[in-house]
Amino acid sequence: MQHKVRIFSGSSNPLLAQSICESLGAELGDVTISRFKNGEIYVNYEESIRNCDVFLVQSFSHPINEMFVELLVMIDAAKRASARTINIVVPYYGYARQERKSAPREPISAKMVADVLTTCGASRVITIDLHAPAIQGFFNIPVDHLTTLDLIGDYLKSLNLARMVIVSPDAGRAKTAEKLANYLDSPFSIMFKKRPAHNESVITHVIGDVEGRTPVIIEDQIDTGSTIVNVVESLRERGASEAIVCATHGVFSDHALQRLNHPHIREVVVTDSIAASGDRPEWLKVLTVAPILSTAVRIILEGGSLATLFKDAGV
Amino acid sequence: MQHKVRIFSGSSNPLLAQSICESLGAELGDVTISRFKNGEIYVNYEESIRNCDVFLVQSFSHPINEMFVELLVMIDAAKRASARTINIVVPYYGYARQERKSAPREPISAKMVADVLTTCGASRVITIDLHAPAIQGFFNIPVDHLTTLDLIGDYLKSLNLARMVIVSPDAGRAKTAEKLANYLDSPFSIMFKKRPAHNESVITHVIGDVEGRTPVIIEDQIDTGSTIVNVVESLRERGASEAIVCATHGVFSDHALQRLNHPHIREVVVTDSIAASGDRPEWLKVLTVAPILSTAVRIILEGGSLATLFKDAGV
Amino acid sequence: MQHKVRIFSGSSNPLLAQSICESLGAELGDVTISRFKNGEIYVNYEESIRNCDVFLVQSFSHPINEMFVELLVMIDAAKRASARTINIVVPYYGYARQERKSAPREPISAKMVADVLTTCGASRVITIDLHAPAIQGFFNIPVDHLTTLDLIGDYLKSLNLARMVIVSPDAGRAKTAEKLANYLDSPFSIMFKKRPAHNESVITHVIGDVEGRTPVIIEDQIDTGSTIVNVVESLRERGASEAIVCATHGVFSDHALQRLNHPHIREVVVTDSIAASGDRPEWLKVLTVAPILSTAVRIILEGGSLATLFKDAGV
Amino acid sequence: MQHKVRIFSGSSNPLLAQSICESLGAELGDVTISRFKNGEIYVNYEESIRNCDVFLVQSFSHPINEMFVELLVMIDAAKRASARTINIVVPYYGYARQERKSAPREPISAKMVADVLTTCGASRVITIDLHAPAIQGFFNIPVDHLTTLDLIGDYLKSLNLARMVIVSPDAGRAKTAEKLANYLDSPFSIMFKKRPAHNESVITHVIGDVEGRTPVIIEDQIDTGSTIVNVVESLRERGASEAIVCATHGVFSDHALQRLNHPHIREVVVTDSIAASGDRPEWLKVLTVAPILSTAVRIILEGGSLATLFKDAGV
Amino acid sequence: MQHKVRIFSGSSNPLLAQSICESLGAELGDVTISRFKNGEIYVNYEESIRNCDVFLVQSFSHPINEMFVELLVMIDAAKRASARTINIVVPYYGYARQERKSAPREPISAKMVADVLTTCGASRVITIDLHAPAIQGFFNIPVDHLTTLDLIGDYLKSLNLARMVIVSPDAGRAKTAEKLANYLDSPFSIMFKKRPAHNESVITHVIGDVEGRTPVIIEDQIDTGSTIVNVVESLRERGASEAIVCATHGVFSDHALQRLNHPHIREVVVTDSIAASGDRPEWLKVLTVAPILSTAVRIILEGGSLATLFKDAGV
Amino acid sequence: MQHKVRIFSGSSNPLLAQSICESLGAELGDVTISRFKNGEIYVNYEESIRNCDVFLVQSFSHPINEMFVELLVMIDAAKRASARTINIVVPYYGYARQERKSAPREPISAKMVADVLTTCGASRVITIDLHAPAIQGFFNIPVDHLTTLDLIGDYLKSLNLARMVIVSPDAGRAKTAEKLANYLDSPFSIMFKKRPAHNESVITHVIGDVEGRTPVIIEDQIDTGSTIVNVVESLRERGASEAIVCATHGVFSDHALQRLNHPHIREVVVTDSIAASGDRPEWLKVLTVAPILSTAVRIILEGGSLATLFKDAGV
Repeated sequence: MQHKVRIFSGSSNPLLAQSICESLGAELGDVTISRFKNGEIYVNYEESIRNCDVFLVQSFSHPINEMFVELLVMIDAAKRASARTINIVVPYYGYARQERKSAPREPISAKMVADVLTTCGASRVITIDLHAPAIQGFFNIPVDHLTTLDLIGDYLKSLNLARMVIVSPDAGRAKTAEKLANYLDSPFSIMFKKRPAHNESVITHVIGDVEGRTPVIIEDQIDTGSTIVNVVESLRERGASEAIVCATHGVFSDHALQRLNHPHIREVVVTDSIAASGDRPEWLKVLTVAPILSTAVRIILEGGSLATLFKDAGV
Repeated sequence: MQHKVRIFSGSSNPLLAQSICESLGAELGDVTISRFKNGEIYVNYEESIRNCDVFLVQSFSHPINEMFVELLVMIDAAKRASARTINIVVPYYGYARQERKSAPREPISAKMVADVLTTCGASRVITIDLHAPAIQGFFNIPVDHLTTLDLIGDYLKSLNLARMVIVSPDAGRAKTAEKLANYLDSPFSIMFKKRPAHNESVITHVIGDVEGRTPVIIEDQIDTGSTIVNVVESLRERGASEAIVCATHGVFSDHALQRLNHPHIREVVVTDSIAASGDRPEWLKVLTVAPILSTAVRIILEGGSLATLFKDAGV
Repeated sequence: MQHKVRIFSGSSNPLLAQSICESLGAELGDVTISRFKNGEIYVNYEESIRNCDVFLVQSFSHPINEMFVELLVMIDAAKRASARTINIVVPYYGYARQERKSAPREPISAKMVADVLTTCGASRVITIDLHAPAIQGFFNIPVDHLTTLDLIGDYLKSLNLARMVIVSPDAGRAKTAEKLANYLDSPFSIMFKKRPAHNESVITHVIGDVEGRTPVIIEDQIDTGSTIVNVVESLRERGASEAIVCATHGVFSDHALQRLNHPHIREVVVTDSIAASGDRPEWLKVLTVAPILSTAVRIILEGGSLATLFKDAGV
Repeated sequence: MQHKVRIFSGSSNPLLAQSICESLGAELGDVTISRFKNGEIYVNYEESIRNCDVFLVQSFSHPINEMFVELLVMIDAAKRASARTINIVVPYYGYARQERKSAPREPISAKMVADVLTTCGASRVITIDLHAPAIQGFFNIPVDHLTTLDLIGDYLKSLNLARMVIVSPDAGRAKTAEKLANYLDSPFSIMFKKRPAHNESVITHVIGDVEGRTPVIIEDQIDTGSTIVNVVESLRERGASEAIVCATHGVFSDHALQRLNHPHIREVVVTDSIAASGDRPEWLKVLTVAPILSTAVRIILEGGSLATLFKDAGV
Repeated sequence: MQHKVRIFSGSSNPLLAQSICESLGAELGDVTISRFKNGEIYVNYEESIRNCDVFLVQSFSHPINEMFVELLVMIDAAKRASARTINIVVPYYGYARQERKSAPREPISAKMVADVLTTCGASRVITIDLHAPAIQGFFNIPVDHLTTLDLIGDYLKSLNLARMVIVSPDAGRAKTAEKLANYLDSPFSIMFKKRPAHNESVITHVIGDVEGRTPVIIEDQIDTGSTIVNVVESLRERGASEAIVCATHGVFSDHALQRLNHPHIREVVVTDSIAASGDRPEWLKVLTVAPILSTAVRIILEGGSLATLFKDAGV
Repeated sequence: MQHKVRIFSGSSNPLLAQSICESLGAELGDVTISRFKNGEIYVNYEESIRNCDVFLVQSFSHPINEMFVELLVMIDAAKRASARTINIVVPYYGYARQERKSAPREPISAKMVADVLTTCGASRVITIDLHAPAIQGFFNIPVDHLTTLDLIGDYLKSLNLARMVIVSPDAGRAKTAEKLANYLDSPFSIMFKKRPAHNESVITHVIGDVEGRTPVIIEDQIDTGSTIVNVVESLRERGASEAIVCATHGVFSDHALQRLNHPHIREVVVTDSIAASGDRPEWLKVLTVAPILSTAVRIILEGGSLATLFKDAGV
């Protein structure tokens, strides 16, 4: 590892930042992040970062707008402190579901976020499993887009499940589910739903054979979990066994964990891209992305190809 | 319609440009587009466009790089001739399938195209059925993204087909197929395929019931048609009737029309977003997008909402 | 007033936006602002704003980062809906105290905010009494910087106070206090303080004669009020009468109102640049900036000079 | 010191540039700066600067517009000669008093200067005691803002003055005077003045006790000196002793030195941020900023914190 | 002529600005341009220009850097005063001879000037006879490049010269001379020279027949006139009659007029693109460009083609 | 030579790229460039280029728009693969003849090309003998503009021609011809022509003595060759011997080689800036620019001055 590299953590996920540093044999940088009484964020790097390659670790997790603005202020302070490069490690990139207009006069917030990060001074983005891969193209700075497909796939293999079926909970996720099915050499099913309102959904029909099989539902993120519960119940009606629910990002809004504590769900698998809050139930498996991220940081610094990180080519 | 609006056509689709003008009661603008002997493109507007709202109609059709550079030169000349706004009407936006990196060290050409058009001086884009809707977000100038869902849906209704099934030819298209199925209140099927190489594909399995039904295959574009033929043959093996193949953009590369002249294809439906070349077989139905585009131009000039153009909200 | 002007309110101060509209004889525009369960902000204009001059009214008040990001999303949605101009009315511009580095490796957040607003697509800023006037220069889009000096000055005149003294609570505010003293033809005093920590302060000495006089303390904003209370008590020790406390922006963080309910404070005067929350005590006088803002909007639309709004030249 | 660093001097202050080089053990770079007969500036680096870190030393001193444009041409030539970084050392940053609009339809020239320097290709600014610290925020390239507070403060300490009082010559300078008073643990006074016209001022009243004390007047720059003379005479009327006048930048326009040769002024203290022209009277003390600047350059090249340069945190 | 158009003059050429206004039936706008004692330029528009189309008339004449920076400050003030468009009328565009690198490590000052004008906020340039026409391409804002070819050509026709020969004083001007020769249907001659140093030149040989002819030397600008004198004397040696010297821009540096008061020069013809200073000798003919510029302004405002201004197509 | 440098070739001139690599002792990088069936270009670097200094060799030769877009896609892919710098080696820069507007409402395509290359992510341009040297100024990234004057001049010297005369085929080339004449210490002649249409020309007269001399016609590029043939025939009519035709870039459009196989042309001399296609006739001499380009690359990487490459200063 080169010298003059400094890694700092925002407020969202200090444990993950710490793990990345440990993997790299580096020490976490010292930065003060505080808030004035009126809520304005204040940042001060407690050590010189002049000419350094700086990595800022921040997920857009709850409370999302606080975490987002905090990152902007961190970037601005790093830029003005003469950092050589400002690499932002955003394990969970929020606002990603607003990546296109689905009605007139909507924002494309995912692009706004990209433009704002670039304007503030970010020189590179490292992120994981974007809701829509085209978000990479929202940036003109390099984006290293990592995937947990191997991480989750290998974990599923370790479970030695008999008669799996990979389930895409909606049409838009079919591509990801297809990849996992290929990775596990498993059959495949897909649900069709309508969204009568934001955060709500109704499943209209299911294609593919699920009867007597263990469904492995794959999502990029679990938000409130209500879609997942609908999917699980639909699968159950069609004769499926208890489900395993997998997602890269465990957002878990609005009492999601209570909702997912469901008789037909055997296990929920997520990663630590978002820091867990509160107690972790035993049916919740959290895989760590620290090795993926620290290897990515190492390759960025030393050169080489991130493709070596993954068996699957979809980086 | 306001005065001081001038509409010009590139080389790709003059008939469509002419139709748009007729719908608007406007005259097509006079522009010279020629090539020097070494292939450099030369453009000269034959009338003053100072302070005008200029609309340039150009599809990225064959030969795609010629049509693309031609548009760049047209935009540059309009900018330097002091046009007030330069609105590019790109019925078929090429390079759209390269909208994300699916392997390391690939370009995101769809973003490159967007950046280049903006740099040259485009102030607005009007386009139809982008391969990936997130491409809207590749621009920071306004994008009016139109859809042919109603156009194609209404045509299909007029056929009064018994026992239709909407078929998504691959996982990535499932969302579009879902929309059409909802529009037509029809069942739904999905094909899974692998792409061992560019322009090739192998269907691995089909989900959903197609037996005894008339499959309506929906795509955003038909390129070589070989995927379509594979889909049709797979459907046939599963007992489907003769297929109807629908796509917004009839690219028809590499003898596609010969390939699509297939015993199990009843009809191919496309639009004139790409100009037809050569004779048009009787089983090829070409719907015109001129009314959609001319209405969009009118609304852009007069104000109002493009949503009124479509029953479906997915603009 | 020209047609095709639409005024929308963010969540921070809808009453003020409503008052501005009433002054202008306009109707407040219809916009949906909601939050997904994970906290992401969603915006949808419920009417066409194509080619309109849009005014977005939003103060950076509590919770400040929510209000800031909300404005970014509103601007992005307006840009993509083809608004002709996007004018942001920010009665209270937060992060303004971070307008320079006072220690190494700090951000200049006020500049970051300016850059981000411009990147998102704002075409003009209308604001009031910036903490540091040089923040105008952080923008390259036009800034209309309004002042409440006349508004507050005229109110003070109406009180017919005998033996006033204008008090600058610290060295950095001396310039503003000097202006008010000139406006009211009144003597002047200045406090010197140290800031051992953020949001804290210790007064070291007072220059100017305050004995037997009614001190009028002038600030740009009142945050926690603890500085003010220190000032009031120092003045009292030096024989001053009950104080009148004036500020443009009533931020009122951290139980400020309880703190300001103080035996030596006769009255607190602020404006509605920030919406009041909860009950308003009788010793709190709130002047409205709606006439200033609506006149500014009218002049922006019709042409003319904002200087006519103010007797003082310091616009 | 790293190799591949080249320091060049503009026409404004070659002696200072030479001193900086000597402190660094570097040789001053060889550049031709000449003027065509019509006054156009011509620049030619007489040695390769390809891939070098280039430092250009230029104050915006008399004739200010010549020095400013000369720097622009130097930057442009360095950019086109493939310099790796272009660091501009601007000991005196002119146009800094125009950092905000104080009347409608004025420029913010300090921002214009910042934008223009950035556009030409400057990658970093090193400067001293900006008239308004917020000018740092006018740049998005790093600004190293140095202070002479220690330099001047330590010199004043060496004088062992009895009964000093630090005097702010107007309300706008109160903050700086407060800092110096804290540094010297001295009392404090402040003058209030009006500016009936540019370069003129009338003192209206003085706050703080000055009788029998030696006033130390602190300014960022001395321009014509007429304000200073007014201040000195006002202090004298109030019983003060002979004054010491301190400023970082000795602009000395319009026979200022004659004006400052005044019976009530004991000494004038400035730095060599602006080159002296003509003979230097004995009552004019010129401190050199070369050590501050050369240390800053060294830290920029080697990394580390500029805070170590100063006892005071106000960098 | 539309309302809401305001024309202002910089210091360089107020008479020309006045003439343009008279041609347009407009009144010259009221702007204060002054200098602080240290030479900083101050600008204040004395009337509202909000939403106006502003035209700023300024030549880059002596003292060139003052005139250049003055224009920058004027543009900045206009931008911040919310002008709708800022059109700069630069009859003489200085720094144009530095339009390419002719030695390593030189600037391309003509590009620097273009970038700086654009950064400050210019939205259009109107100029005359650029030293190198490719300078148009240095801008991405529209450039209206006018020519005096007709103006000078028509004047020459009015002289009814017998046996003219158009002379290009060096190889680089051959193209312009060729155009004038075609316009006047006249023979043509060309001089070859070397430039041992800036502002100096030695003629090596002459091609074309000049004996017994009246040479009409055509240049874009006359600077010191020493080249011209060399040319005249070379022509005389080859038997030519007294010369007529024509140029668009009479820069007249370094006692040029004395030098041009030469026995073999019959007449010097220039335009008022640069204001004359001092007495005008009788052998100096000054043609006015006011009609060309005012017509250009009218066409810009009303639409239409500038080509109608000229018989020759080389606009 | 430093490590971490990778050189890749586009499709236009792989032999030249190979030669450059050999001169540098480097291996040509491995990149896949292919086309989808609809003509879209696809690029994939087959090795990691993370943090590398990448050089992309591509001439804008036939088919010019394909080669241009190919380079854009190569740049985009390199940028997204995290190349440290992207240096484009463009031996022949097409569209260079459109470097200014010679009629209203024309493009300035040479500027459009420059802007587009910069937008895509090029960080430096290395090119040879631009049609107009001012095109250097179209870029704000460094341009290393090389010349073949020595290469061609030395070759001509080696021919030991008796009684040479250097011929400029039109007024616009006079400057280049003058340089070559000085280099060879030879007399000089110039042709005047009119262009009744694109790619056509009529010679009107010739200045300078050519009788009994061997004319050496010098051009930057040979396109169709018809101008050259006209020039040769005009020279012949005036008694000149067989001509030698020299140009840096052998574009050879539209059967140019057949046309140049002419009884009065003794030899045609070009360079390999454009790859030869088909058989090379014996009267066609192709000099290689590989040593010039490889030396330039070496100097760029190691530092130093490109001026050492050339005896003539006109770099």
